[in-house]
Amino acid sequence: LDDEKRLRLMKATAIAHANIALIKYWGKRDERLNLPAVGSISVTLRELSTKTQVVFDEKLTRDELILNGTPAGEEERQRVSRFMDIIRSEAKISEKCKIDSRNNFPTGAGLASSASAFAALALASSHAAGLTLSPEELSILARRGSGSAARSVYGGFVEMKKGEAADGSDAFAVQLAPPEYWDLHILILITSTEQKLIGSTGGMIQTQETSPYYFRWISEQDRDLREMREAIRKRDFEHLGELAEFNALKMHATAIAARPGILYWNGTTVELIHEVRRLRLQGEAVYFTIDAGPQVKLICEAPSVDKLRQHFQNFPGIKQIIDTPLGPDAYLWEASK
Amino acid sequence: LDDEKRLRLMKATAIAHANIALIKYWGKRDERLNLPAVGSISVTLRELSTKTQVVFDEKLTRDELILNGTPAGEEERQRVSRFMDIIRSEAKISEKCKIDSRNNFPTGAGLASSASAFAALALASSHAAGLTLSPEELSILARRGSGSAARSVYGGFVEMKKGEAADGSDAFAVQLAPPEYWDLHILILITSTEQKLIGSTGGMIQTQETSPYYFRWISEQDRDLREMREAIRKRDFEHLGELAEFNALKMHATAIAARPGILYWNGTTVELIHEVRRLRLQGEAVYFTIDAGPQVKLICEAPSVDKLRQHFQNFPGIKQIIDTPLGPDAYLWEASK
Repeated sequence: LDDEKRLRLMKATAIAHANIALIKYWGKRDERLNLPAVGSISVTLRELSTKTQVVFDEKLTRDELILNGTPAGEEERQRVSRFMDIIRSEAKISEKCKIDSRNNFPTGAGLASSASAFAALALASSHAAGLTLSPEELSILARRGSGSAARSVYGGFVEMKKGEAADGSDAFAVQLAPPEYWDLHILILITSTEQKLIGSTGGMIQTQETSPYYFRWISEQDRDLREMREAIRKRDFEHLGELAEFNALKMHATAIAARPGILYWNGTTVELIHEVRRLRLQGEAVYFTIDAGPQVKLICEAPSVDKLRQHFQNFPGIKQIIDTPLGPDAYLWEASK
Repeated sequence: LDDEKRLRLMKATAIAHANIALIKYWGKRDERLNLPAVGSISVTLRELSTKTQVVFDEKLTRDELILNGTPAGEEERQRVSRFMDIIRSEAKISEKCKIDSRNNFPTGAGLASSASAFAALALASSHAAGLTLSPEELSILARRGSGSAARSVYGGFVEMKKGEAADGSDAFAVQLAPPEYWDLHILILITSTEQKLIGSTGGMIQTQETSPYYFRWISEQDRDLREMREAIRKRDFEHLGELAEFNALKMHATAIAARPGILYWNGTTVELIHEVRRLRLQGEAVYFTIDAGPQVKLICEAPSVDKLRQHFQNFPGIKQIIDTPLGPDAYLWEASK
């Protein structure tokens, strides 16, 4: 019976959405388990999603990974294969699997896809392996693949808890509010589609090891998290935006002060920072946040979207604008044997 | 006799040079006396100077200030007039004066002229007032006008001591090495000639009051000063350059982390940071430093100047390039009654 049950679920497809942190995740307290040194708060994005199918197949001799229709590079494949080892170990199975993962947003659009990808993979593969996981367990599992993926398990406003336990059992995300709670929009201004010189993990490690400001960054975070929860609770847009900018710039400052300094921005990134502030001086309710890369993400409320989109349409250096409201929880698309 | 002596010296002209800090001055421990919260190390620049004539005249009813041939604005005039009050009080004279100050570099070139201006003014006005000051006293006097002016009293490599005394009596600059000690060049890449949104003093105060990283910035500085003295002592160019970049980026990071964050850079500033690093990866011995503004200052040794100048000639966003070796002490041009 057990075997039959498992066979019924050897194949599953799940969808998860990208997210953008308003209070940033920067720093790890454990690299192997991917445990964050700080909590973070994000919004899940409806228009950016990954759809992932996982099929366990006893005939396979190694895990296969197809990304957006083409076989992934060996480094990527091994990263995912190590993640699948966790699933196999939990589910007590040994079959290798074929993974087909597809983003609905252009690859090379300079957007991190690891959050939506590992959240979708965690959901699809756990189902395919016959595991029944609580949302917390799913979030913990997704975290093993990518720290920010732990948040993409939920829609709306999400908080990742840094946790205290050495095994990571309390390092998972929780939902603060569903997407319909507040009609916020994120406008992603793509300024570069080039590969970054230093990834998030590499940047975090270099920051931890060399930035004189790293410890203060960590010790300040709880205050920012508290403030952001309060701004969300009150639907105080100005406070949410002002705090998101402060926290994002502080994260970048922590990295810029590393030795050598890490600078994720390009020229357009900086011109956009100034432009958003100019717009605010003119009365526009718009704020920005920036992740470990050169793209600028505008934060606004629904009524401002059209005007802002138009304003930035012809801004020098912007390659593409993506507008998105908040998105839903990760969900299962199909599951079959 | 005393009166005669004084009369003989009612008019004096002095020249002082701009300087650029390799270890930055950022933060004040006393605003009124302009006492720095940190020491700093700079190089004095031969090609950027201010020539200032001071004439005390009992017929004048208020201080007059001519800047580059035209009467200065009232705010500027009053700042200089307050400085002259210090001189009059020290010299026990009451005459108002006429000050004619001229930079040899274009006004609005986006370069701070207050260092060379107040060093030249301190030297000219003290002579014109009949004061005989030691170099330390002259440096202390210049500091009252502008913190960085204390360093422009000397040529070559200069260290500003933050001092401990509440009255500022030990907050003066000393020369670490004369200009001929090491043939360094500074290439100033002008990226903007616009007025900055926030000046140095305003930026320092906002940083002190709101940046979570300010205290660490202060407490780290002595280590950087020690390291820089050592790099200069050994003529270790790579160390000097690497450390100058680290310290400059750390200063900017401290300001970026203020609330709201202070960002002195423009798009070209950031593209130049990346370009200098690309050049280094290609084997060029070139580093950068950036003050509280958008200009990028390249640090190199004499043999690299031509190649670098050529390389950046057509770089997008650069308005002008100024090349300068290290310059001499401030000196008296003429003095008469």
